[in-house]
Amino acid sequence: MNGIITLTTDFGTQDGYVGAMKGVLLREHPAARLVDLTHDVPPQDVFAGAFALAQAACFFPPGTVHIAVVDPGVGSSRRALIVEHDGALFVAPDNGLTWLAAPGAAWAIDSTRLPPEWLIHPTFHGRDLFARIAARLAAGAPIAEFSTGIVVQRQLALPPAAREGATLRGEVIHIDRFGNLVTSFPGGTVSGTLTVAGVDAPLHTTYADVAPGQPVAYLGSSGFIEVAVRDGSAATLLSASRGAVVRSHKE
Amino acid sequence: MNGIITLTTDFGTQDGYVGAMKGVLLREHPAARLVDLTHDVPPQDVFAGAFALAQAACFFPPGTVHIAVVDPGVGSSRRALIVEHDGALFVAPDNGLTWLAAPGAAWAIDSTRLPPEWLIHPTFHGRDLFARIAARLAAGAPIAEFSTGIVVQRQLALPPAAREGATLRGEVIHIDRFGNLVTSFPGGTVSGTLTVAGVDAPLHTTYADVAPGQPVAYLGSSGFIEVAVRDGSAATLLSASRGAVVRSHKE
Amino acid sequence: MNGIITLTTDFGTQDGYVGAMKGVLLREHPAARLVDLTHDVPPQDVFAGAFALAQAACFFPPGTVHIAVVDPGVGSSRRALIVEHDGALFVAPDNGLTWLAAPGAAWAIDSTRLPPEWLIHPTFHGRDLFARIAARLAAGAPIAEFSTGIVVQRQLALPPAAREGATLRGEVIHIDRFGNLVTSFPGGTVSGTLTVAGVDAPLHTTYADVAPGQPVAYLGSSGFIEVAVRDGSAATLLSASRGAVVRSHKE
Repeated sequence: MNGIITLTTDFGTQDGYVGAMKGVLLREHPAARLVDLTHDVPPQDVFAGAFALAQAACFFPPGTVHIAVVDPGVGSSRRALIVEHDGALFVAPDNGLTWLAAPGAAWAIDSTRLPPEWLIHPTFHGRDLFARIAARLAAGAPIAEFSTGIVVQRQLALPPAAREGATLRGEVIHIDRFGNLVTSFPGGTVSGTLTVAGVDAPLHTTYADVAPGQPVAYLGSSGFIEVAVRDGSAATLLSASRGAVVRSHKE
Repeated sequence: MNGIITLTTDFGTQDGYVGAMKGVLLREHPAARLVDLTHDVPPQDVFAGAFALAQAACFFPPGTVHIAVVDPGVGSSRRALIVEHDGALFVAPDNGLTWLAAPGAAWAIDSTRLPPEWLIHPTFHGRDLFARIAARLAAGAPIAEFSTGIVVQRQLALPPAAREGATLRGEVIHIDRFGNLVTSFPGGTVSGTLTVAGVDAPLHTTYADVAPGQPVAYLGSSGFIEVAVRDGSAATLLSASRGAVVRSHKE
Repeated sequence: MNGIITLTTDFGTQDGYVGAMKGVLLREHPAARLVDLTHDVPPQDVFAGAFALAQAACFFPPGTVHIAVVDPGVGSSRRALIVEHDGALFVAPDNGLTWLAAPGAAWAIDSTRLPPEWLIHPTFHGRDLFARIAARLAAGAPIAEFSTGIVVQRQLALPPAAREGATLRGEVIHIDRFGNLVTSFPGGTVSGTLTVAGVDAPLHTTYADVAPGQPVAYLGSSGFIEVAVRDGSAATLLSASRGAVVRSHKE
């Protein structure tokens, strides 16, 4: 392990929750190097958290530990996981959060193997469970210290493309800060023009391929086809929100 | 000291203020390890800053220095403090900001002991005073370098519980990002059902003890009784804001 | 170089973009120490990004590398720069973003000198170009590895003061989180009272020089004259936005 621990949560940045997690991480592993990915996942929005994590985690060096906590089921019987993928470890609830970034082997955390002195508050596993385990893993503890069994992690359903006559139908799966619409079409699966909310966006390479104010489709940096308006917000100008239908007119 | 310096401010994240503080910290102590707790304390809201700091600071390893700057009185004659608590040091204005996290011995910073070359801008003590002192303390400087006298730090009044016939009255002291209502009742002081804004919330252990959409009270991760709505925002659904009355019907 | 790399972007904190940049930085230079300045520059607002960078960058120790990405022209033919100033390096698009912080010698990044294995996504130079170059520079690579030519960087026009009879006219160039109005008047260029939106703000040293609720002008911590309302938001109370006219009545 390289000592890097990243954090992805829906805790926001106004409360002391993120700070508490960081304190636990540094208390358990003083040499850890903490890296905030995002704490502004919309509250309890597992898909948005999974998408943000997938956008970022793959770029970190091998040996990184990623904590992800978007956890509507905290305190219930939902499982907690350690997932291994491409030399990185992910510690997260088993609700699909790690599926896009790390569709790999998952170990179920076995609560009977945890140190008995760990008091785990039923509403804050991020601080009392995930942070402690991540710190230990980053310090070199083996996964077997916390788990004995490999399980199938919960998957997230990406909306499948549907054929409708001559067109292929997908949807907007994410809207970024700039109002760019990330569609469910992976790069290479469509060509030609996309239509969202009645607006046609021709497929090009980048924003600058169209005039300011014009819609454009392109292969986005996350691997999906996106629809943007050059120098503007497609979300605002097209009144498009997550789930909006996107049609591809293949020739 | 362990080299860790945490930052808690109401500076927000849009201006260059936080970055300027970080620059000063690293210039004064290049080996410092900076950890953001929060910069999104509502502007000049000392209680909210004190609460966030108290939620997080206690989890850091001994030898940590915490800077806290929510400072409506900057440039006035309000004192500046170094507070010691549980092996950690806090550097902050004397306005109650450190009271919940560090109700310990406080040293008044003596401006006549500061290096004469320190130019201190009257509207930005965070950068020019607190960051420099915190960096020096984290690098091992003794408190006596900046102060000669112990003082009584300003306290924050937590609203006391009031007995009203058969009920105990408290109030909402904080609302978190999820809309959970943190009440002024410390854990263990109430039992049974809490009532906020006409809604009864039975005391349980965690969200999952009630059905989705139902109110629930529980001992929160910060040590106070909280009222939440499972899978929803209690603040929105109960139209409750900070200061709202909470009643406990003890049996 | 000292290993510190700061980040200033308009990427916001909700997407995975910032995390992806951090991953690349740590993959290319595992010992780098990452410092967030701000990611909340308003989307594509180059001036706001330049101002935030200028508020903070000068405080970092020599040998720091600053990445700044507010890049409406990404994917177009706009140049990318490495700028050297006061012992620090800045990596940024050539759109004025570095002008306030680092009006120094600029090297144009020569895309023909980049490693051929670098795939550079046309909409995300922050991740694929700027982060990689910054990491290399922080690790000690010479500027000449990426550039052969010094160029004149694009400048930002600060609004010049205009004389109008007995008064000097400037404008509000930035509004901070507290609603303080940063004017285009550098410290020392005006005296007496400033007028914004029909309200007179006498020039003093700090907020505490006037009564709560009263307007006050003072030399701000960024080197410009500011107008504030003590214990309130001047932006709200004076209904002033960026670009609002400010008049100085010199005697």
